[in-house]
Amino acid sequence: MKKPIAIQGIKGSFHHEVAQRYFKTQTDVVECMTFDSTVDSLLNGDTDFIVMALENSIAGSIIPNYALIDRHNLLIVGEHYLDIQHNLMALANQSITDIKEVHSHPMALLQCKAFFKNYPHIKLVEAKDTADVAKQISDKNIKGIAAIASENAAELYDLEILAESIQTIKHNETRFVIVQRENEQQNLNTNNKASLKFELQHKRGSLAALLNVLSDCKLNLTKIQSLPKIETPWKYAFFVDVTFESYKDFEKAKSILNLMAENFKVLGEYKNARQ
Amino acid sequence: MKKPIAIQGIKGSFHHEVAQRYFKTQTDVVECMTFDSTVDSLLNGDTDFIVMALENSIAGSIIPNYALIDRHNLLIVGEHYLDIQHNLMALANQSITDIKEVHSHPMALLQCKAFFKNYPHIKLVEAKDTADVAKQISDKNIKGIAAIASENAAELYDLEILAESIQTIKHNETRFVIVQRENEQQNLNTNNKASLKFELQHKRGSLAALLNVLSDCKLNLTKIQSLPKIETPWKYAFFVDVTFESYKDFEKAKSILNLMAENFKVLGEYKNARQ
Repeated sequence: MKKPIAIQGIKGSFHHEVAQRYFKTQTDVVECMTFDSTVDSLLNGDTDFIVMALENSIAGSIIPNYALIDRHNLLIVGEHYLDIQHNLMALANQSITDIKEVHSHPMALLQCKAFFKNYPHIKLVEAKDTADVAKQISDKNIKGIAAIASENAAELYDLEILAESIQTIKHNETRFVIVQRENEQQNLNTNNKASLKFELQHKRGSLAALLNVLSDCKLNLTKIQSLPKIETPWKYAFFVDVTFESYKDFEKAKSILNLMAENFKVLGEYKNARQ
Repeated sequence: MKKPIAIQGIKGSFHHEVAQRYFKTQTDVVECMTFDSTVDSLLNGDTDFIVMALENSIAGSIIPNYALIDRHNLLIVGEHYLDIQHNLMALANQSITDIKEVHSHPMALLQCKAFFKNYPHIKLVEAKDTADVAKQISDKNIKGIAAIASENAAELYDLEILAESIQTIKHNETRFVIVQRENEQQNLNTNNKASLKFELQHKRGSLAALLNVLSDCKLNLTKIQSLPKIETPWKYAFFVDVTFESYKDFEKAKSILNLMAENFKVLGEYKNARQ
């Protein structure tokens, strides 16, 4: 029997939606309140996969999740893009003027900041999970508090949507990755995308030389980010995503990068979700 | 007479501290509750400079501030690095078990998340500004609520520090920039650092070719980040910082980048604060 999938949040969350869409037939989930605990459940074998948000078209990368994948030597084995629409919801028969507090995930609050400028009477409170707030409001019959969550959550927890798509930037896409334990990687030569991490000496031209290799090997860059090394501010590591047509090209690039870059690491090889 | 400096937050905030350290003799400030309103005060002429946090050694870039600088064609004319230490503070004669809520800026809450795992009875609430919470607690004599702010703020608003340096990663450096209106740039050939923005066609090798030019012109990369173009998810712009020894080298690179990259833009030229 297959193990359930670890998701951050509860049923009705965006992570749950991605699990359903990505795994289709198998959508049994372990609800985790933090990304750290999704990793715990993976490492102790309760689950074989995590669904984890990794970057967002508005706020950029979710750096702490890159750190989790890197620190625990996890592997990215798939990706999924979801267009996230935030809706304001509460128990039925309330108007927005009845709402005193909105509880939601910091990222959701950030993305809907402009909307709440028009409602200065509403206090924004951080919560662990968008859908969990919806569930709590429903379970405990709480009036005066609203959630920001998906249409799915409103339906699942029987709340009324007070305002639709309240995020400032209407096209709001998040990239989720499917993550697995290290020792279980299957390098399939049908993969055509990879996430890499490496470090470089702070020396003129070192990054250019490395990108030349990627280009010579016919790899296409879809993301690059220099990142401070934790506990060593302003020493940077690089996180790079590449796509390729031939797996042989990628293998060639890997063997060269192994020699050229410090601490070169493949965070995962998978199928490009954007063909 | 010189105009005051626009800061995000109030006196006692980290932005205030940077204003004092960077401008030394002139430290009169306009306290703004949002980064947007610092920009308003600059554009309507109330101030001639903004002090603005731009990146952090833990959470990475503050993307919305890059967007503000870019959208309003502001110029970065200086930078300052500050090692940020977060302290938990409240009215005197309370212990941490008396604290029911901590109000602070989302970034501060994020950076201190691990500390609060040990105090699950404390609710984390988003506030606009770290120092303002300290001021409110002091002004209104509020018990049971704590702030996360600087030592300066504790002193200024007469609060007691319940726990020092509560951020998870002890070395916690933030890079602030000094920002000015576009039409007032002075290109000084004593400048040795610059922030650039450009867009590239999603074509293999296009970024490598451009970095080769930077390297050939003897420019050193200190930061690179591909960023989604707002409202056009997964089309990326690049934000790059470079340092150089000779201003002539930089001028040469500029003229080549103007021809090679789409929408090439110098976000600012200034003195490298890390020599």
